[in-house]
Amino acid sequence: MSTEDPLPGYGGRLRDLLESKGARVGCRVRIIREPGEIIEGILMPKHSLSNPRTIIVKLDNGYNIGVDVESVKEFCVIECREVKRASTTKLAMDSSKPLVTIIGTGGTIASRVEYETGAVKPVMDPEDLVELMPELKEIARLRTFVLFNILSENMTPHHWEMIASKVHELLSEDPSQGIVIAHGTDTMSYTAAALAFSLQKLPRPIVLVGAQRSSDRPSTDAALNFVSSVLASIELKVGEVVVCMHGTTEDTYSLAHRGVKVRKMHSSRRDAFQSINDVPIAKIYPRERRVIITTSRYIPPHRPEELEARIGFDDRVALVKAYPGFQPEIIDFLVDRKFHGIVIEGTGLGHITEQAIKSIERAVQEGIPVVMTTQTLFGRVNMNVYTTGRKLLSVGVIPGNDMLPEVAYVKLSWILHIDRDMNFVKRMMLQNLVLEMNPFHRVDLFPRWFHG
Amino acid sequence: MSTEDPLPGYGGRLRDLLESKGARVGCRVRIIREPGEIIEGILMPKHSLSNPRTIIVKLDNGYNIGVDVESVKEFCVIECREVKRASTTKLAMDSSKPLVTIIGTGGTIASRVEYETGAVKPVMDPEDLVELMPELKEIARLRTFVLFNILSENMTPHHWEMIASKVHELLSEDPSQGIVIAHGTDTMSYTAAALAFSLQKLPRPIVLVGAQRSSDRPSTDAALNFVSSVLASIELKVGEVVVCMHGTTEDTYSLAHRGVKVRKMHSSRRDAFQSINDVPIAKIYPRERRVIITTSRYIPPHRPEELEARIGFDDRVALVKAYPGFQPEIIDFLVDRKFHGIVIEGTGLGHITEQAIKSIERAVQEGIPVVMTTQTLFGRVNMNVYTTGRKLLSVGVIPGNDMLPEVAYVKLSWILHIDRDMNFVKRMMLQNLVLEMNPFHRVDLFPRWFHG
Repeated sequence: MSTEDPLPGYGGRLRDLLESKGARVGCRVRIIREPGEIIEGILMPKHSLSNPRTIIVKLDNGYNIGVDVESVKEFCVIECREVKRASTTKLAMDSSKPLVTIIGTGGTIASRVEYETGAVKPVMDPEDLVELMPELKEIARLRTFVLFNILSENMTPHHWEMIASKVHELLSEDPSQGIVIAHGTDTMSYTAAALAFSLQKLPRPIVLVGAQRSSDRPSTDAALNFVSSVLASIELKVGEVVVCMHGTTEDTYSLAHRGVKVRKMHSSRRDAFQSINDVPIAKIYPRERRVIITTSRYIPPHRPEELEARIGFDDRVALVKAYPGFQPEIIDFLVDRKFHGIVIEGTGLGHITEQAIKSIERAVQEGIPVVMTTQTLFGRVNMNVYTTGRKLLSVGVIPGNDMLPEVAYVKLSWILHIDRDMNFVKRMMLQNLVLEMNPFHRVDLFPRWFHG
Repeated sequence: MSTEDPLPGYGGRLRDLLESKGARVGCRVRIIREPGEIIEGILMPKHSLSNPRTIIVKLDNGYNIGVDVESVKEFCVIECREVKRASTTKLAMDSSKPLVTIIGTGGTIASRVEYETGAVKPVMDPEDLVELMPELKEIARLRTFVLFNILSENMTPHHWEMIASKVHELLSEDPSQGIVIAHGTDTMSYTAAALAFSLQKLPRPIVLVGAQRSSDRPSTDAALNFVSSVLASIELKVGEVVVCMHGTTEDTYSLAHRGVKVRKMHSSRRDAFQSINDVPIAKIYPRERRVIITTSRYIPPHRPEELEARIGFDDRVALVKAYPGFQPEIIDFLVDRKFHGIVIEGTGLGHITEQAIKSIERAVQEGIPVVMTTQTLFGRVNMNVYTTGRKLLSVGVIPGNDMLPEVAYVKLSWILHIDRDMNFVKRMMLQNLVLEMNPFHRVDLFPRWFHG
């Protein structure tokens, strides 16, 4: 909103109506809609590709809704605050609040994107953030840093390095500041794992946050997630990388998931992120400003001087899925092309067709570590139960325990950048560095399914 | 049990004890264990690698438990049935019961395996099955056919063809018989999908069944699953391929999952199989002999003459996982090696790094269909929301809707064997042939997760 327009995005008859009532963006308004439903909240700006007949209102529960002007029986302005922009900017810089640095990397949460031009446009000024989420100014003094701006499907190990280096720099500069990374959701859990291995013995949580629906959509989850993540970055007393996202479809709380145990489990739901083979670390109620740690098993904050930064990833690792009829030539190709490591997303307890064992054996003999995980996601590999598993172990395959395939991929890439010696790689892969393995599976770690 | 030994597998002091009480396998026994727990059930045979101090008893709930002889305070025989073997064989052939043919393909359910020699030994005689699960003889006249005996990680499209052909043959011979396929769990859902596409407009359900723990282990799920599957093969009035497995960790009911919507979601739990983006078709209570259809959306049984069999799979299809840093040379390799089709397990709404789009475009231009699915498993791809998706669509990628990556892989392999024409493949991939797509996602299709 760099424009002076008091009603950005509103045009035509709708704009006429709003102007006639003295409304401008930021005003508290009341709408009575057929057949008598009352909607009260803050009038929000729109974007040019939105439906021209829709009024966007931010409800008190933090959500935006779109109201079709045709359905409006009554519209009135309750109050209009004074020049919002100036005051929020000032408040955002209120030095009595703890400093939180937000690193922008792109994705839905940091964008107003695509509606207008198809281009991704970051919304990363503290002013814009506070305008979208006024409660932020009560919690923190925000500072933003746009590191890059990409859709997260385009992340690479090189981007992980850039983010880790920035976090490291911030922690060295002032370990007391909160750190939040705004990130696309597609590969957020991979980046979380990358940071967790890169920066160990953390003095505080490093919080990744995203949105499944962009912040100018009525059903956006950006506000709850963002406020929760800022709160967690200050209040959550752990030394871990966490992913902070909606806990349910309701607008009640977020969950802080362990970065090495979380996975995007739905393509569109707001509660898509879930801990696998582990419990979330904390629940965050942003309205009540409450952060509740929900497990006794976490890495506590370390002293700043204890931080162990080892930033770097090997980009010659492949994550390969096993399936019936899997063609061993795929493994042969990776070996021929001098890949440095292979993670297999195997079946069941950690299997792949016996047809592939010769190729896998050759990979190991040529110094390429091969790690086995399971496509069931839940549970752990146990390669001693069946013949296939034992054969794979005997040719040197490294069992991935209960690590997610994606986490094993990130971990192997991180280890290989330190040293490609097979024994070192094996020892490190089997070692539980940042709780990426959970020896304590309880029966209730498996979710409850709908049984008709 | 081809041996005459009345106590197979029992030796030493334990055997002496059992003999002194007049016990033999098949007798109903009562054990009082410290500190007063009463265990009653049928004495079961053991295998030589079992703990020599353990007595195996089949409880009335169908489960086997192992009792350490050291903990036994009292042991007595309640009754011993007459020469069990002969009588059960006879009963298994009782011509008043409906015929059920069990096709053995291997896997845990059809094996007593590995404990002894490491070799997989099928347990597929009707006599053996009835001995393990006496209730079977009340339900059906069993006939068994061992098609092959492999661990399911070694299945290939060629094995799918063999199974489909056998089922086709059985249906042609006598469409009134129940058909159950005993299968390893690792890739059971792939085979279920393969059968569903191969044999459409079925006159009855085709039931796949497996076990997560072999039938001679105290915690086996084989009995409940097997009895449920035989029951479902007779009583379930649908014309679909279903997977019949434990519904919960309790020993209460099984679920019949739609073969094209089910996935193994845990490496070891008995309730590992779950419907994704769909509800199970039926609940089966084997003790009560009840089969309850739990959805209104299913394919009804067709007249036998309507059966459409088209059996054959293209084994030049690859299932490729997307990840940050994905190396496009993997796609290039598949194109160079003249693969016939590629299914991508993308991120989020159906994405992969933009770096790979050129290689994908080349694949399509060379006549290799590329199908996009999502690694979130839940939800559906929607490639119109973000730039990456739109670019992928524009180079000709076929969106997989809400199909599981594994199901899209099987479907593409099946279609390509009919015709490799790109337009035909695209039309067929987008068509909902056997309910492999679910246009009706409800909020409760996503499971409930444990939130500490």
